[in-house]
Amino acid sequence: MLKSSELLELINTHIAELAFARKPQGLYAPVSYVLSLGGKRIRPVLMLMAYNLYKNDVNSILNQATGIEVYHNYTLLHDDLMDKADRRRGKATVHKVWNENTAILSGDAMLVLAYQFMADGCPSASLKKVLDLFSLTALEICEGQQYDMDFEARLDVTEAEYIEMIRLKTSVLLAASLKIGAWLGGASEEDASGLYDFGMNLGVAFQLKDDWLDVYGNPDVFGKNIGGDILCNKKTYLLIQALEHAGEEQSRKLRRWLDAAEYEPAEKIASVKELYDEIGVGRMCLQKIEEYTALAAKSLEKVSVPSEAKAELKDLMNRLMNREV
Amino acid sequence: MLKSSELLELINTHIAELAFARKPQGLYAPVSYVLSLGGKRIRPVLMLMAYNLYKNDVNSILNQATGIEVYHNYTLLHDDLMDKADRRRGKATVHKVWNENTAILSGDAMLVLAYQFMADGCPSASLKKVLDLFSLTALEICEGQQYDMDFEARLDVTEAEYIEMIRLKTSVLLAASLKIGAWLGGASEEDASGLYDFGMNLGVAFQLKDDWLDVYGNPDVFGKNIGGDILCNKKTYLLIQALEHAGEEQSRKLRRWLDAAEYEPAEKIASVKELYDEIGVGRMCLQKIEEYTALAAKSLEKVSVPSEAKAELKDLMNRLMNREV
Repeated sequence: MLKSSELLELINTHIAELAFARKPQGLYAPVSYVLSLGGKRIRPVLMLMAYNLYKNDVNSILNQATGIEVYHNYTLLHDDLMDKADRRRGKATVHKVWNENTAILSGDAMLVLAYQFMADGCPSASLKKVLDLFSLTALEICEGQQYDMDFEARLDVTEAEYIEMIRLKTSVLLAASLKIGAWLGGASEEDASGLYDFGMNLGVAFQLKDDWLDVYGNPDVFGKNIGGDILCNKKTYLLIQALEHAGEEQSRKLRRWLDAAEYEPAEKIASVKELYDEIGVGRMCLQKIEEYTALAAKSLEKVSVPSEAKAELKDLMNRLMNREV
Repeated sequence: MLKSSELLELINTHIAELAFARKPQGLYAPVSYVLSLGGKRIRPVLMLMAYNLYKNDVNSILNQATGIEVYHNYTLLHDDLMDKADRRRGKATVHKVWNENTAILSGDAMLVLAYQFMADGCPSASLKKVLDLFSLTALEICEGQQYDMDFEARLDVTEAEYIEMIRLKTSVLLAASLKIGAWLGGASEEDASGLYDFGMNLGVAFQLKDDWLDVYGNPDVFGKNIGGDILCNKKTYLLIQALEHAGEEQSRKLRRWLDAAEYEPAEKIASVKELYDEIGVGRMCLQKIEEYTALAAKSLEKVSVPSEAKAELKDLMNRLMNREV
C-alpha cells in the first residue's frame, strides 16, 4: 500500500504531464492554467486510497482520478466566475486572466473532459454505475451551489439547511471519489457505501473547518486573508449560528455590520469576530467539526479491511481536521 | 416506419412530459423554461429517424433523443449568455429572465442532465461508444464556439476556416445524432459512418442557409429580424466572402460600415446588402449550399437500406434546405 504522500506525487506528476493538444488554444490554455495552479488534490488522492485498500495497481485508475480533479477544477472555475472572485490559490482567476466568456466555455470543456477521463479505460462492468454516480454527484453539486447563492439573500438560513448545502456542494464529491475508487478496486457494496459515508461526513467536517479557519486561522499560515468571509457577509456556519443565537443587542450590532456599505475592513472583521466570541459560535463550530469527524471515523470503522490498511485514510482525515490551511 | 412529423410529435410529447422534480427550483425552473420554448427538434428527430431505418421500437431510445435535445438547449443557453443575446425563439433568454449566474449554473446542470439521459437505458454494449462520441462531439462544439468568438476580432477569416468552424459548432451534433441512432438501431459501422457524413454535410448546408436567410429571407416568414447578422458584424459566410472578394472601393465601403459606431439600422442593412449583391456573395452562398446538399445526398446514398426507407431523411433534408425559416 502506498502512502497518501506517494499517491499525491503520483497524481501530481500525471496531471503535470497531461497535454491538451487539441485546438483552439484559446479554449485549452485556461484548462492547463487552472490545473497547473495545484491544490491539495484531495479528491483524486481519496479515490486512489480507496482503490488501494483492495488493489495495488493504482496506476490503472489514474484516468478516473484525473477526471475527478478536472471536474473539481471546473467547479472552482465556474464558481469563481459566479462569485466574481479575483484570485484562486494566489493567482488570478480565469475570468480575470482571460474574460468571462472564456471562463464559461473553458469550464464547459473541462466538464466534458472530466467525463472523458472518467470513461477512459473504465472497466465496462463498472462504467454505467461509475458514470451514474458521477452524473448524480455533478447534479448535486449544482444544487449545492444554487442553494449557496440562494442563501446570500436570506438571513434566516437554518443550521440544517446549511449542513445540507455543504453536503451537496462539498461532501458528495469526496464521497463519490471514495466510492468510485472502492468500486474500481472491487470492494463490496457495503464497503463502497461505508467509504461513501466516510467521505460525506469528512466533507462536512472539512467545510466547517474551512469556515472556522477563515475567522480563527493563523494569519501567518492560512493562505487566504483572515476574515474574507466576514467582509463579504458569506453565510458560513459561524454567521448562521450567530444570527440564530444572538441576543437582541448582539443581533442589532451584527445586522448593522451586515448592512454597512462603507467600513474599515479590519474594524468590521474585529467587531464581527468579537460578536462571534461573545455568542460562542467558534466553539459551536468546533463541536460540530468533532461530531462529523467522529461520524466519519465510525463510517470508516465499518469498512471490512484490516485496520492497518485504513490507517492512511484515518491519518489523512486527522491531518485535514487539524490543518491550519 | 414513422414519418418525421410523427417522430417530432413523439419527442415533443416526451419532452413536454418531463418533470424536473429535483430541488432547488432556482436551478431547475430555467431548465424547464428553455425546453418549453420549442424549436425544430431536428437533432432528436434525426436520431429517431436513423434508428428507425433499422428498428421500429423508436420509443426505446427516447431517453437518448431527449439527451441530445437537452444538450443542444444547454449550448443555446450558454451561447446566448456569451453572445449577450436577449431573445431566443421569441422569448427572453435565461440570463434576462433570471440572471447570468443562473444561466451559467442551470446550463451546467443541463449538460449533466444530457449525460444522464444519454446513459439512461442505453444498452451496455453500446454505452461506451455512444458516450465517447457524445463527449467528443461536445468538446468539438466548445471548440467551434471558441473559433466563432475568435473570429469576431478578425477580418481575415478564410472560407476554409469558416467551414471548419460551422462544422464543429453545428454539423458534428447533427452527425452524432444520426450515428448514435444508427448504432442503437444495430446498423453496420459503414452505415453509421455514412449517416454521420450525411449529417455533417447537411449541417454545413443548414448553417450556410441560416446565414443566407438572415440577409435574403422573406421578412414575413423569417422569425428573426432580417439583417440581424449584418447589424452585429457577425462573421457569416456572406461577410467573409464579401471581405475576400470585394474590390478596393467595395472593401473601403464595407469596412466603413463594420467600423461605424452610430448608424440607422435599416440603412446599414440596405447598404451592406447592396455590397453583397454587387460582389455576388448571395449567389456564392447558394452555390455552396447546393454543393454540401449534394454531398449529403451522396453520403445518404451509400447507406445500405432500401431507398424507400431513406425517403424520409431525404425529404427532411430538402425541407431544411428549402426552408424560409
